Amino acid sequence: MQATMDIPAVSLMPKGNPHQTCIDACMKCVQICEECFNMCLQEADVKARTSCIKTLQDCAEICSTAACFMSRDSGSIKEICNICATICEKCATECDMFKDQHCKTCADTCRQCATECRNMAKM
Amino acid sequence: MQATMDIPAVSLMPKGNPHQTCIDACMKCVQICEECFNMCLQEADVKARTSCIKTLQDCAEICSTAACFMSRDSGSIKEICNICATICEKCATECDMFKDQHCKTCADTCRQCATECRNMAKM
Amino acid sequence: MQATMDIPAVSLMPKGNPHQTCIDACMKCVQICEECFNMCLQEADVKARTSCIKTLQDCAEICSTAACFMSRDSGSIKEICNICATICEKCATECDMFKDQHCKTCADTCRQCATECRNMAKM
Amino acid sequence: MQATMDIPAVSLMPKGNPHQTCIDACMKCVQICEECFNMCLQEADVKARTSCIKTLQDCAEICSTAACFMSRDSGSIKEICNICATICEKCATECDMFKDQHCKTCADTCRQCATECRNMAKM
Repeated sequence: MQATMDIPAVSLMPKGNPHQTCIDACMKCVQICEECFNMCLQEADVKARTSCIKTLQDCAEICSTAACFMSRDSGSIKEICNICATICEKCATECDMFKDQHCKTCADTCRQCATECRNMAKM
Repeated sequence: MQATMDIPAVSLMPKGNPHQTCIDACMKCVQICEECFNMCLQEADVKARTSCIKTLQDCAEICSTAACFMSRDSGSIKEICNICATICEKCATECDMFKDQHCKTCADTCRQCATECRNMAKM
Repeated sequence: MQATMDIPAVSLMPKGNPHQTCIDACMKCVQICEECFNMCLQEADVKARTSCIKTLQDCAEICSTAACFMSRDSGSIKEICNICATICEKCATECDMFKDQHCKTCADTCRQCATECRNMAKM
Repeated sequence: MQATMDIPAVSLMPKGNPHQTCIDACMKCVQICEECFNMCLQEADVKARTSCIKTLQDCAEICSTAACFMSRDSGSIKEICNICATICEKCATECDMFKDQHCKTCADTCRQCATECRNMAKM
């Protein structure tokens, strides 16, 4: 499925932001983790999900921070992307424990974000 | 220009997130404000931009917060979108004072985000 | 009870930060809301606390943002303090619904923070 | 100088939050970095401070995130404290390049926070 936006998705930078793919992955991961957080809280087995719910919040926060660091071309992009990948991987592992569709999709999104962040950290 | 993303831009929600357009506007505004912050810091007249630079940081932070609130379907979406719109409008006014292209595009992005946030607050 | 800190609690500003009391209230509210979030997730009746848990996250985030705005003497302190107070009051109302000690103390902390924020917004 | 607060500095946890010293150091570092950010923007040699100003924002953000992670007893405290220490050390190095009092005090605050975070990461 293709992203559709009413607003232009351009960077201010003449040749585009060199971190754009990873920024997009992080921002999408923020949304998906917050949605999954909300949906997990409404599941019948919410008591089994305490650790997952906390990790989803960790993941949303660090992805949000990483997106900001990359957008402003911080000097600590590699460090932030490395920890972001680590927390995304933890979050994917937590979500993989549950069979509902939202956790499955969230785990996939976290893994994609982790891959982008690891690539960014290696540059 | 159309957004292109390597990752699927789907929400976890079966019919999509009802706040998607505003979430996208806020997340884009985060990126653009952080980029403009970085570019303003490198301008020859940076001393004239102190207020603009601070407001860009305010705008990025509140847009980031608003995107999280909407993603998890918080009970305070109207309140956060209203203040987000107000700060986006302030940021547009600050950026309008400068003639470079990045401030001009940033001002437009902030205004688009403000419009989306005002619409969300009225729902 | 008096705060004890190993590090000096000085502001960089020669006469201290004029927003110090409100900054302290917001930062304390961040910690208490995050602690209460964690403790609510472990309660036997977690299913009854979904709305409270989400509001605790909203409250921690907006208090954190407000503390940053005040620390850097943003031009939008009144606006951010007003919404911070509103969300703190919502959070206090949610926490008041539960009889455990952590929610009771959290509600008190949120109300104190709301009072400080309302005072700040009136200045 | 001793911290003075109008509100009780208690944790919700019966024996106190085991991360309290580090939470306090991080929250104080948030305030000091935001204040230093604001003061650097007003210095005559602001053009020489671009990198410092960006790093101060990085430091405030990661310290704020670390304080939240510790407050809610996240499963990623060691990872977040390690990167927080790294960024605090970078920020101290940047601030050490300038002779004004606010940068000197900010560098000290960042180093204290880095020490607390390294200790936390070793636990």
